[in-house]
Amino acid sequence: MIRAAILRLLAEVGYSALTMDAVAAEAGVGKATIYRRWRTKQDLVVDTIADMSRVMAVPTDTGTIEGDLREIMHLVAAATTSPAGAAIRSLLPAMQHQPELVAAFRNGPLAVWRAAYAAMWARAEARGEVRPGLAQSVAAEATSALIVQRWLLTGEPVDDEYVERVLDVVVLPLIANARPEA
Amino acid sequence: MIRAAILRLLAEVGYSALTMDAVAAEAGVGKATIYRRWRTKQDLVVDTIADMSRVMAVPTDTGTIEGDLREIMHLVAAATTSPAGAAIRSLLPAMQHQPELVAAFRNGPLAVWRAAYAAMWARAEARGEVRPGLAQSVAAEATSALIVQRWLLTGEPVDDEYVERVLDVVVLPLIANARPEA
Repeated sequence: MIRAAILRLLAEVGYSALTMDAVAAEAGVGKATIYRRWRTKQDLVVDTIADMSRVMAVPTDTGTIEGDLREIMHLVAAATTSPAGAAIRSLLPAMQHQPELVAAFRNGPLAVWRAAYAAMWARAEARGEVRPGLAQSVAAEATSALIVQRWLLTGEPVDDEYVERVLDVVVLPLIANARPEA
Repeated sequence: MIRAAILRLLAEVGYSALTMDAVAAEAGVGKATIYRRWRTKQDLVVDTIADMSRVMAVPTDTGTIEGDLREIMHLVAAATTSPAGAAIRSLLPAMQHQPELVAAFRNGPLAVWRAAYAAMWARAEARGEVRPGLAQSVAAEATSALIVQRWLLTGEPVDDEYVERVLDVVVLPLIANARPEA
């Protein structure tokens, strides 16, 4: 309940305008409750970012690179449209000047995503579906870039139908180009 | 000189923490000079965003879709790494709650880019290089998405070598798939 209030407030006002008082008011608890848990605003936000990775859905092994990509891209899309996704979007500018926030993001949600992507590419390589090194190529960046552009820049919808179009028109053709024999 | 100071400050502190006093100090002028030109902070930022589109480089007609894409993508990359690009990145969260800022962005820099892209796709269609409707497809989104993802999310470098790799590995193969006969 306090977590949800923090995400709502972060999405609305960002980091610099966030206050411990506003968190207490939004969560409907006393200030003492907030200060007992977090000494400073930075503690509170760092812990909130770290907590996101504890509740993130982790993609399963579907047995094919197409199935794995479909699942991970739907999960990425769902994350961007979630309250955590809205909070991260508002936090990004502050991250440029707050090494503690960047570290929480890199070691938390970003590390979870990177590990999931790395495992997916490693399985595809082991099955001989993609050439070695694809994980480090710009083709791999395309699997999230179109979703990220709508999330952070244009605000256009990121729904299941959109993910399927990105898969069909952009991602699966690029993966087909990256077969070992290609 | 005042414009450059505003862009630097916006990149550093964003919209909500920006003050007219700080703009005057950063620009090395008196507060009266700032207030004579802009009545409010919102006026100042709206005008600054509008001004970006007056100084933007507009791509030329190179005669081929490959040449046009190469030029527009290098211009987009240069824009994201410019002081204006840093200012826009810091302003994006504020745009979600400030319709005046969104309007200035949509009618200013975004409109200039959209017109340049639309003219490029229309020329390619007229030359028979791409199928009709490609401009509205997700493949067209891929021409900027990878650059935007590095600009707004990962902070990885967006230099000329990166743009060439995105062209070779992602964009030109997608355009080849979108030939009218394909």
